[in-house]
Amino acid sequence: MNPISRRTILATLAAVPALPQLSLATPAWAQAQTTPLAAWNDGPAKQAILDFVSVTTERTSPNFVPPEERIATFDQDGTLWVEHPMYSQVLYCLDRVPAVVAQKPELKDVAPFKAVLSGNREEIAKLSLHDLEEILLATLSGMSVDTFEAEAKKWLDSARHPRWNRLYTELTYQPMLEVLQYLRGNGYKTYIVTGGGQDFVRLYSQRVYGIPPEQVVGTAAGTKYGYDKDGKPFLTKEPKLLLNDNDAGKPEGIHLMIGRRPYAAFGNSTGDREMLEYTGTGVGARLKMLVLHDDAVREYAYGPAQGLPDTKVGTFTQALFDEAKKNGWTVISMKNDWKRIFAFE
Amino acid sequence: MNPISRRTILATLAAVPALPQLSLATPAWAQAQTTPLAAWNDGPAKQAILDFVSVTTERTSPNFVPPEERIATFDQDGTLWVEHPMYSQVLYCLDRVPAVVAQKPELKDVAPFKAVLSGNREEIAKLSLHDLEEILLATLSGMSVDTFEAEAKKWLDSARHPRWNRLYTELTYQPMLEVLQYLRGNGYKTYIVTGGGQDFVRLYSQRVYGIPPEQVVGTAAGTKYGYDKDGKPFLTKEPKLLLNDNDAGKPEGIHLMIGRRPYAAFGNSTGDREMLEYTGTGVGARLKMLVLHDDAVREYAYGPAQGLPDTKVGTFTQALFDEAKKNGWTVISMKNDWKRIFAFE
Repeated sequence: MNPISRRTILATLAAVPALPQLSLATPAWAQAQTTPLAAWNDGPAKQAILDFVSVTTERTSPNFVPPEERIATFDQDGTLWVEHPMYSQVLYCLDRVPAVVAQKPELKDVAPFKAVLSGNREEIAKLSLHDLEEILLATLSGMSVDTFEAEAKKWLDSARHPRWNRLYTELTYQPMLEVLQYLRGNGYKTYIVTGGGQDFVRLYSQRVYGIPPEQVVGTAAGTKYGYDKDGKPFLTKEPKLLLNDNDAGKPEGIHLMIGRRPYAAFGNSTGDREMLEYTGTGVGARLKMLVLHDDAVREYAYGPAQGLPDTKVGTFTQALFDEAKKNGWTVISMKNDWKRIFAFE
Repeated sequence: MNPISRRTILATLAAVPALPQLSLATPAWAQAQTTPLAAWNDGPAKQAILDFVSVTTERTSPNFVPPEERIATFDQDGTLWVEHPMYSQVLYCLDRVPAVVAQKPELKDVAPFKAVLSGNREEIAKLSLHDLEEILLATLSGMSVDTFEAEAKKWLDSARHPRWNRLYTELTYQPMLEVLQYLRGNGYKTYIVTGGGQDFVRLYSQRVYGIPPEQVVGTAAGTKYGYDKDGKPFLTKEPKLLLNDNDAGKPEGIHLMIGRRPYAAFGNSTGDREMLEYTGTGVGARLKMLVLHDDAVREYAYGPAQGLPDTKVGTFTQALFDEAKKNGWTVISMKNDWKRIFAFE
């Protein structure tokens, strides 16, 4: 990981000493569940999942759902893995800035790039959403799909979260891996529907979540088919946004990429509101769940719904909390509903 | 089917008397294959399919492909079902013109709509690609996804091809249904990758081909998430093209919607060239096949590669034929390679 963004974005987090790598015969998501949802405490959240599966899979149930229609969608950042203090894909993009500027020196003096290169913590903290978008565009387009994949994989295999000193791909929530596995074991096709980059998440979705690349819906830009000097075809990542997979973009993306309304949807922020609403509007039993980050000890606590600071990453507003209550969406308390947070604990 | 387009677009085809509906306990694509590819004559095309499956699925083969990577993509019009004399989705759109004009009377005097409404055969035949696009846009957008689905389903359940007097969904090629089933039986995930509208094809893909909606990649426009007067959310089909799934758009669409390079690809026209090329550029054994419409008796014969008229629908040029030969793509002769064309024969 590039020291510039490490020093700045993650400056408040103390690095812990290296821990031995977790070594498992099978990945966490694929381990046999003798008891379903073992990392969950008994309570309304766990019960909502068990009840939903029961009423949608028992043949005699009035809410039985044919296997081919069993679709469940999961937001990623803050729902399946840690998003604090910053989305890991944004960290990847910040880390890529020096390499991009080396290739396009004219960016050296353009505001957001200059700020990142400066290593000045305050300046980086002041970057606007528009600035970040400019950085994302520059670092995620203009190269071949193959080049992007090689670079991003290298980063994913080396960059570590300073608090746990672990790869980002290790910081998945054990209880959610169990939900994915439990739903799949009951005939559900599990999808990631993320505001993150589709091409980025597809690189590790199978390994980390047991979700194949074709079941990842994310923010997506176009590609352009062309030929190299030897006439070999390849795809170039273009700076042309096709799908902004946040807010209303989530149901729109689900329609585009899946073409069916989900029966279950999981999120953790206002960006997931429309996905849960769209899911809930379907007939029959529908499961709508929101992860609340209220565990400052084992993970983090943030968001206005708890009267805590809005960290601008995974914002859980009071309005979302009220809407969940009104619509019968289940709020998962990380503190109370989860026995364990991570597989490595 | 609306008499206007019937008289005009299909004017040269003699309608045959109604035949009894085909009634099958299981759909054609799902029938057990005691002998694989029974509707195929022995020959190089059938052998290419058998060899490909054998070398990619036998564990000891150097070209073994892990099950999760087994992706096969199929063009639809002219590859899986009849496209002559006109793509059935275009016929649907022409049939929708009176209803669209009834709602937007100002279109009555706009050139392409006027031509369709006139019923004047010569004028309709003269419609340019741009005119057709204007008609497609007007008839495929501006309504809710639910309304579109209801209207298109009604059409699919009633419109008939004049030559066989059968629903369009019955005019699938039995040998290709067998290939789909044979590949799936060997762990391949089968996808449709069509220049046709994604939302249109998804309405019948499961029933007709055994391919679920989420495995249909097609020309796609955006949708917009909004609310009706009771606050219920719904998606509106927008006149905003996201993916033109023809030519280079096919590999681009495959990357967007699947994210993996196919191991097998089937097409029948220049619009499928890049998909086959992209498939063929991958390492290991890759199956690339093109259906040649050379059976004027049982189906149709057309295309410049045979010195026959270019009907502008599914054009198979001499250049494509030469490229297939050069690159080792297999050309399927409907006349020689297929024992039967349709399931109902």
